[in-house]
Amino acid sequence: MTYLDHAATTPVLPEVLAAMTEQWARVGNASSLHASGRAARRAAEQSRERLAEALGARPSEVLFTGGGTESDNLAVKGLFWARREADSRRRRLVVSPAEHHAVLDSAEWLAKHEGAEVTWLHLEPTGRVTPEALADALGDGSDVAVASVMWANNEIGTVSDVAALADVAHAVGVPLHTDAVQAVGQVQVGFAASGVDALTMTGHKLGGPMGAGVLLLRRDAECTPLLHGGGQERDVRSGTLDVPAIVGLATAAATTVAARAERAARLSALRDRLVAGVLEQVPDAQLNGAPLDDVLAGGPGRLPGNAHLSFPGAEGDALLMLLDARGIECSTGSACSAGVARPSHVLTAVGAEADRARSSLRFSLGSTSTDADVDALLAVIAPVVERARRAGRGR
Amino acid sequence: MTYLDHAATTPVLPEVLAAMTEQWARVGNASSLHASGRAARRAAEQSRERLAEALGARPSEVLFTGGGTESDNLAVKGLFWARREADSRRRRLVVSPAEHHAVLDSAEWLAKHEGAEVTWLHLEPTGRVTPEALADALGDGSDVAVASVMWANNEIGTVSDVAALADVAHAVGVPLHTDAVQAVGQVQVGFAASGVDALTMTGHKLGGPMGAGVLLLRRDAECTPLLHGGGQERDVRSGTLDVPAIVGLATAAATTVAARAERAARLSALRDRLVAGVLEQVPDAQLNGAPLDDVLAGGPGRLPGNAHLSFPGAEGDALLMLLDARGIECSTGSACSAGVARPSHVLTAVGAEADRARSSLRFSLGSTSTDADVDALLAVIAPVVERARRAGRGR
Repeated sequence: MTYLDHAATTPVLPEVLAAMTEQWARVGNASSLHASGRAARRAAEQSRERLAEALGARPSEVLFTGGGTESDNLAVKGLFWARREADSRRRRLVVSPAEHHAVLDSAEWLAKHEGAEVTWLHLEPTGRVTPEALADALGDGSDVAVASVMWANNEIGTVSDVAALADVAHAVGVPLHTDAVQAVGQVQVGFAASGVDALTMTGHKLGGPMGAGVLLLRRDAECTPLLHGGGQERDVRSGTLDVPAIVGLATAAATTVAARAERAARLSALRDRLVAGVLEQVPDAQLNGAPLDDVLAGGPGRLPGNAHLSFPGAEGDALLMLLDARGIECSTGSACSAGVARPSHVLTAVGAEADRARSSLRFSLGSTSTDADVDALLAVIAPVVERARRAGRGR
Repeated sequence: MTYLDHAATTPVLPEVLAAMTEQWARVGNASSLHASGRAARRAAEQSRERLAEALGARPSEVLFTGGGTESDNLAVKGLFWARREADSRRRRLVVSPAEHHAVLDSAEWLAKHEGAEVTWLHLEPTGRVTPEALADALGDGSDVAVASVMWANNEIGTVSDVAALADVAHAVGVPLHTDAVQAVGQVQVGFAASGVDALTMTGHKLGGPMGAGVLLLRRDAECTPLLHGGGQERDVRSGTLDVPAIVGLATAAATTVAARAERAARLSALRDRLVAGVLEQVPDAQLNGAPLDDVLAGGPGRLPGNAHLSFPGAEGDALLMLLDARGIECSTGSACSAGVARPSHVLTAVGAEADRARSSLRFSLGSTSTDADVDALLAVIAPVVERARRAGRGR
């Protein structure tokens, strides 16, 4: 099996599994006051410190959540509620239309149910949000609750200059949230250095467990909880701390971030070969997102493991299934939108025509990816595309 | 170490760890369309069926969440929002004052921020909610969004007759949510048989993983999501399915429910010996909650593993620490409220005086509890109470 869908989820690292298994052998609720409880608390706090160090944040800024979706919802809704409560004029959300649905749908729900108004950011054709576009959308900022722009896009892999965006937002007193679920471990992510107020990350995109994520939240950012209860996590996120998963998450982040530069170089070389090979086999295929060699101030302008291509005249879902039948696993876009028969909102947002948007595939590389995976794809992509095109014409 | 805090969290069962480890070896996002994704989806759906069977529900009624706190928040807020949206007169929440903070604080937040009004239910001295008390509070029900009464109290172990309460609520067209986090695996819990509309359960109270819970939700119950995004779980709870934890949760529920009757008999005998022994050693100690032999229509009126006692003149926290120093782990109440220097809201709600409320300890038994655990407690409880009383008088 050739797994080219690491952006959907990636295998758990052996050291992560070992750390979790060790923690599973212990009993103890991190909120309990006895020795077992205090030991569980220590394990959680050591993990908080490891995560903070890996992400360039302070331990007190690390809030454990149940994953990326929850972190995104908490940031968008929590910052909106808290900022509007402090000043009722702050009703506006400034959001990129290429965000993950966890951000998009949170914003739309707030607009429909909670009196918010959404301003959609203009995107470059690459999918990037520029500082100028953000400044235009924010205006004087006085009516804005929160802005949200992802660090790196989960479908087409485009990286935005989040530090520059944070400067623009702060110039008009607006907090910036960024979804860095795909960025962490692939490009350099520093919370303090970026200046953002809130940052979403999750474990299972970097060899950690599912069901465990983080919202990094500046100490001075007021955020209304989504989950009320026992008052864990600075009273912003209640719920028993899932200590084994937290230990796994911290191990994954520390391991992946430490090996990032080396792995990024390896994966971008593999990815470049994949794209070149596909374009050779299918000359009219089109690369979506930023150019492979795109560079921003802080590093690559495109995620090293991301290849996103359109095959005009072929349906993405048909391509996916034909490749799957040949043992090659990839996706048409976000796994979270899989099975939904509509063109990618990301490609639509960057102005791609419907055919291009519907005919796209995402190949995403990760820790276990090898030259053999690329070879396997290149051996079948041309006949697969040809067959999908024939099927499309036959309808 | 003598662990008498199984209600806070209980050791993971060996078969749960084995099932999770097997699933961890696989890669695949259950939302992905390729073979690995479909395999992950199958594992999740088989777990959904096992859970449904263990809980007397239909598979389509099982919604996976990140734990009990999330399930409670989703039920209270989600049912409130959806019911009020359907009819703006429905602003009232009818809630027992002995609920877990996840329910209490959700209700209070809705009152403070979302225009809800909370009616607190009258409790019997045992902590039980009677059908009459619920009927009184509901009135004609036309202005009620949702009622919430826990199946079994997490501190004092009192079981309410949830089926009778559901009948009362339905007679006036109000949905009933119940937090069954402590009940599942200890008393017989059947979702369909109980008639409730929504039921919270979680894994780590029955030998499953932390960070994995369920909201059972009737198909006809409209519930506004707390977490928006990919549209997983009937569009009520978005987020990548944590398949390894889900497999562990289902294994824990199936195993624990199958062994329930036998374990309940064993634990209630142990618990009765513990209480009798403590009362012999400390004659003025007082049992809180329902009598040990209390019976309801469907089974015991008190959780078999629960012993909750007050030691007048001694501070609960001092008792806890003195016992901990002797290797005996218990709690003063809910782990989620630990470290908070105020008398238990549960004991206060049942009318206990401040001294009684502050001087209480919860001993909770579980799968690994033995006679030796009880012996260890009985060997030290008298001098520990005496010392705590002296410390109290010395201040």
